[in-house]
Amino acid sequence: MTDKGRECSIANALEVIGEKWSLLIVRELSLGFHRFDEIAHNTGGSRDILATRLRTLTSAGVIEKSLYNERPQRFEYRLTPAGKELWPILTLLADWGDTYVTSGPPPTKWQHSCGGSLHPVVTCSSCGDLAQPDSVRVTRLGAVT
Amino acid sequence: MTDKGRECSIANALEVIGEKWSLLIVRELSLGFHRFDEIAHNTGGSRDILATRLRTLTSAGVIEKSLYNERPQRFEYRLTPAGKELWPILTLLADWGDTYVTSGPPPTKWQHSCGGSLHPVVTCSSCGDLAQPDSVRVTRLGAVT
Repeated sequence: MTDKGRECSIANALEVIGEKWSLLIVRELSLGFHRFDEIAHNTGGSRDILATRLRTLTSAGVIEKSLYNERPQRFEYRLTPAGKELWPILTLLADWGDTYVTSGPPPTKWQHSCGGSLHPVVTCSSCGDLAQPDSVRVTRLGAVT
Repeated sequence: MTDKGRECSIANALEVIGEKWSLLIVRELSLGFHRFDEIAHNTGGSRDILATRLRTLTSAGVIEKSLYNERPQRFEYRLTPAGKELWPILTLLADWGDTYVTSGPPPTKWQHSCGGSLHPVVTCSSCGDLAQPDSVRVTRLGAVT
């Protein structure tokens, strides 16, 4: 039996992007690959699953479809502003994957403009200090329903 | 047909946590709920799916199982250091969900120790500057296979 669980924006976000292929599509669009065949080749996903995920991401406003060829009709996909805001999450996933999952050296180099390798950390946009479990108080405004 | 796709630590990370229920389990453990019944109630997930995800997360070293009662045998789950490192990703997902998915006011308040609401941003751990697409050069060290 499935009940509703907590009302929560993490859960809401994961309804849209909480699935491997969705975030790999966002990865490809971030890297500049916008066409279905490129996305299929570069993610290794099945065409059926990718087509379904592209539809979900489009209807959720994370990506948009645009016509780049009239005859035959061909579409490509672009990140919307909401989709572009997922880029920081990709940097954290890459760093976490490098550290805890990938065996061997990192397959991708992320170099920050300061010259160093990017090890992304999360900070508070108001004060600039690190946001960590002991510096953030999480208050539920509603109960689990 | 599914081929391999890019060798990539984002993809590797998503093999472990690229699924809604896995990250909702991590959310519950981060919030201090460690027992199966609490996790099932608070996430609203089906017990079968949650049990499968708990096994995957345990074998990937993201969580660990510990006995808290001998008779009857009862286990609870704790985040490992790798699991605790997912907390920053949860803060970004919550903020993104608040902004782009949740209708109405945010269901959870994240308050930083500086007094402000937490709007997490990703910065470079070396220089402290924002990490953004135009300040990070991404270089693939291997081809798509």
